[in-house]
Amino acid sequence: MTTTIGLIAPGEMGAAVAAAVTDPRARVVWASHGRSDDTRRRASGAGIEDVGDLADLVTASDVMLSICPPHAAAEVAEEVAAHGFRGCYVDANAVSPDTARSIDATVARGGAAYVDGGIVGGPPRQPGTTRLYLAGDDAIGIAALFADGPLEAVALDGGVPAASALKMAYAGWTKGSAALLLSIRALAAAEGVEADLLAEWTRSLPDLAGRSDRAATSGGRKGWRWVGEMDEIAASLDAAGLPGGFHEAAAEVYRRLSPLRDATDDTTATRAIEALLHPEEH
Amino acid sequence: MTTTIGLIAPGEMGAAVAAAVTDPRARVVWASHGRSDDTRRRASGAGIEDVGDLADLVTASDVMLSICPPHAAAEVAEEVAAHGFRGCYVDANAVSPDTARSIDATVARGGAAYVDGGIVGGPPRQPGTTRLYLAGDDAIGIAALFADGPLEAVALDGGVPAASALKMAYAGWTKGSAALLLSIRALAAAEGVEADLLAEWTRSLPDLAGRSDRAATSGGRKGWRWVGEMDEIAASLDAAGLPGGFHEAAAEVYRRLSPLRDATDDTTATRAIEALLHPEEH
Repeated sequence: MTTTIGLIAPGEMGAAVAAAVTDPRARVVWASHGRSDDTRRRASGAGIEDVGDLADLVTASDVMLSICPPHAAAEVAEEVAAHGFRGCYVDANAVSPDTARSIDATVARGGAAYVDGGIVGGPPRQPGTTRLYLAGDDAIGIAALFADGPLEAVALDGGVPAASALKMAYAGWTKGSAALLLSIRALAAAEGVEADLLAEWTRSLPDLAGRSDRAATSGGRKGWRWVGEMDEIAASLDAAGLPGGFHEAAAEVYRRLSPLRDATDDTTATRAIEALLHPEEH
Repeated sequence: MTTTIGLIAPGEMGAAVAAAVTDPRARVVWASHGRSDDTRRRASGAGIEDVGDLADLVTASDVMLSICPPHAAAEVAEEVAAHGFRGCYVDANAVSPDTARSIDATVARGGAAYVDGGIVGGPPRQPGTTRLYLAGDDAIGIAALFADGPLEAVALDGGVPAASALKMAYAGWTKGSAALLLSIRALAAAEGVEADLLAEWTRSLPDLAGRSDRAATSGGRKGWRWVGEMDEIAASLDAAGLPGGFHEAAAEVYRRLSPLRDATDDTTATRAIEALLHPEEH
């Protein structure tokens, strides 16, 4: 009566989600074929068993859990379906409702069930920090795999793609507003009034200076993988008849910050502003 | 030794700024010709003396103070210059650095001095709420007119257009993020997950529900005159080589909220979302 969960792919988030499975009858496996040494280390550190390649993973798994960059989500689903997966496919990626529906269709064509997922918060290590929202017929069963653990799995009342929609809205504010704030500080710097803006913020909006510093640090470290997410959010707004321009601009902000991912120290606001104003030099 | 300040135009902000002049040797005048009864009442309530038409205002004034919607700012400067104004022209409107430079050129061609201004905060009634930033050769002299009053006038070190740049950056966050937040809540509503988003916000970002409610109220009341301001901010970012899409989207948000200006009660989030999602019905 073991439930075997196939994990694609054990990145920082994926490995932490795998480690957060609490059902004693569940085991998590992955396919190391073609993957980096870093990923192998992370997977074995999280106690995730290696079954070989993707075909082996599909054969072994009752549940497939896809946690990957948003631009890769649809392709991963195609590959899994092409290998004949007929279990329950959980896509927990930051994709638009339309992308989620398209993944649902791919998965259904292959004969599998689909659960739409969306993760809010960082890699779950202690309770209360992170929610895995789930939507679809099997949402409650998938949520039960994480019961009473560090990852709070929430089955939504709405069907597919409620979890993706919720993720788009949530991240649309957090990451969209961070990109806006950095752009605003960069505008002030370009016009020679950054110190004046910081002085005004100190008086009337005292959290903004620190918030823009933190936006620089996280944008420097993770902006490269938020570009695709901003594209998905822009598409979500467009599809709802709302202006997508906020997140097209945010995608451009994170694109310009992408070269900073390899920085050995934290990205400061000054450095982020430099990258935003002079992208050609990075 | 009286300094006569000509005010264009006594809107809510203009009248409050006029009332905040503290220099005992200064008097504030305006031109009522062609203006509405509401504006006349507001001007007389603020103790602003009526001198007749624009030609009379130009003749009477040592300082001209332009406080009007941003899309009208350049035209007002043209008209004042065409009437031969040779005093000190203060443009305190929410315009881009490029627009401010262009107004400077207009004013200079007419033989007047130029001071670039930008107002941060609401109509000044008590000290500490509102700053009038000023930039240019005569900034300190203009600031002195408001000394120790309810409006804090700050002469910036940078020359023209530092005050406009600061205003664009400041409002680029406050009004840009408010428009983003409303769009995000509208996206959640369109996808049937608004209650889920509000529940997640309650847990992890507890100020956002109230903030989006307040964004609806102020956007409903004043969004119609923020459209031009968002256009100016988008142009400011574009001119600095930064993505202007945030504020092109924000302009569209406030354009869709514009019909709500005539609502007799405050705009709720639900009503703002309705206007954002179904602009054709308003």
